[in-house]
Amino acid sequence: METITDIRQMQQWADATRSRGQRIGFVPTMGYLHAGHLNLVRAARSHSDAVVASIFVNPLQFGTNEDLERYPRDVRRDTAMLLDVGTDVLFLPEAAGVYPPGFQTTVTVERVTRGLCGAARPTHFAGVTTIVAKLFHMVKPHVAVFGCKDFQQLVAIRTMVTDLNLDIEIVGAPIVREADGLAMSSRNAYLSATERQAARSLSKALAAAQALVEHGEVDGLRILAAARRVIADESLARLEYATLADPDTLEEVDAVRRPTLLALAAHFGRTRLIDNCILSRESTARTGWRKSPDSQLSTAN
Amino acid sequence: METITDIRQMQQWADATRSRGQRIGFVPTMGYLHAGHLNLVRAARSHSDAVVASIFVNPLQFGTNEDLERYPRDVRRDTAMLLDVGTDVLFLPEAAGVYPPGFQTTVTVERVTRGLCGAARPTHFAGVTTIVAKLFHMVKPHVAVFGCKDFQQLVAIRTMVTDLNLDIEIVGAPIVREADGLAMSSRNAYLSATERQAARSLSKALAAAQALVEHGEVDGLRILAAARRVIADESLARLEYATLADPDTLEEVDAVRRPTLLALAAHFGRTRLIDNCILSRESTARTGWRKSPDSQLSTAN
Repeated sequence: METITDIRQMQQWADATRSRGQRIGFVPTMGYLHAGHLNLVRAARSHSDAVVASIFVNPLQFGTNEDLERYPRDVRRDTAMLLDVGTDVLFLPEAAGVYPPGFQTTVTVERVTRGLCGAARPTHFAGVTTIVAKLFHMVKPHVAVFGCKDFQQLVAIRTMVTDLNLDIEIVGAPIVREADGLAMSSRNAYLSATERQAARSLSKALAAAQALVEHGEVDGLRILAAARRVIADESLARLEYATLADPDTLEEVDAVRRPTLLALAAHFGRTRLIDNCILSRESTARTGWRKSPDSQLSTAN
Repeated sequence: METITDIRQMQQWADATRSRGQRIGFVPTMGYLHAGHLNLVRAARSHSDAVVASIFVNPLQFGTNEDLERYPRDVRRDTAMLLDVGTDVLFLPEAAGVYPPGFQTTVTVERVTRGLCGAARPTHFAGVTTIVAKLFHMVKPHVAVFGCKDFQQLVAIRTMVTDLNLDIEIVGAPIVREADGLAMSSRNAYLSATERQAARSLSKALAAAQALVEHGEVDGLRILAAARRVIADESLARLEYATLADPDTLEEVDAVRRPTLLALAAHFGRTRLIDNCILSRESTARTGWRKSPDSQLSTAN
């Protein structure tokens, strides 16, 4: 595995790889990797000849009172994990080169970034789409893979790619979960033991909603009430939002008549976690959701 | 010369051209071409193996009360001119494909777009940088050429390219002028005969300022006063701004101690025209400015 820190050198590697007729797969990350990230790398490998994974904790996507400073970092462990899963290039750009003095350009995606997490994090998605546009121009991938756990991020990036005519295929990879259902996240490392227990309420709330839908419920208020009740029962959990939305436009919907996004955000102490699934009246196999909490639950895009 | 209207087909042409190891030069235009545009194509040819010129009257960069509807169009004449100057591909994307329903992404460059034309046209440059980012992803050029007449546009695009790490060389081509000094512009077609006479005041104002600087004047107020006086003497001219600025950052300056942008905008009837030059105390040859109004005046970037 080659490690590249220089942006120009990354572009030259991309040009050389492309000129050999090879397809480049790309997995942008903020590091502190877990099994979910490794699945993204595997997905990228299946779509390409050479995989680049980047680690860059992007200051632009953190709000002023958010967790930029304490965001977990362990590049040595990350490097070993990426090597193990068969990454070709680890791209580690430095913040000073990514945002040099004079930097003043923003890529903004409007409607899909307003609701859900965008309501509480008004500058977050502009930070995400700006860094992803930059990384795409640095790495020049044919295909890039993002996790469905950050579903709104995935939709924002898909929209940006379509709107700006970026010639890049965007692949959404299923959520990877711990044995008890908790969606894997680098931020899970913040949780105390009791918060960790309480955080199970997120995936339980999704499961409760999915069970209702499978039994024929279509009314959005009743479905959301069922999800909210699970989280309200957990004294350490503070719900930020529970929302039903169209999975493509992220517009809120009040009924589940077709596959519908159920997205949750909640705080456990100082830690903010998100989770989601695609609710569907049809077979759960189609949405990739499995009922057994001791197996890997997942949502397919 | 090949004509391409489909965005996907344009990208495929770009991929095929790149895979042959050829460099792509690009000249984006809004059509109604003049000698200035043809110079851009010639400059692109000198930097590349295959030249793409696009014609797209971009609705996003026109304000609500601006001249989108009456903007002059003559694709047949443009096609003949581009063929004549040795263009390889004429790219004619259709508005419905460029901005399909659901379009919601904007590329914004902040500081360099606020002053000068940005003060009176607050949405203009976001429209420019957004369409240029899109066209860059459609045409995939190695080098793109823009005219120095739209100097603020050139700086905004350079800044976007740097900030978003687009691997594209941006070349600024000198202003091409009519025999009497008027900078060539598609909008000159709007001018009545008397307005056309009055419009000469723009280049005369630049020449007056440059003459002062060559005689040792450094005070910005006196230099601007000289330029404003020339335009004030023309009863059909209504000055919008006359500004001295750093040519890289477009920050206003109050003295000409190094090569400095003098930018003008003025209205002649319903027609708004702009012009500029780089003022320099050193030899005029260095700035590319020639005093004789019957030869082609130009500013080099």
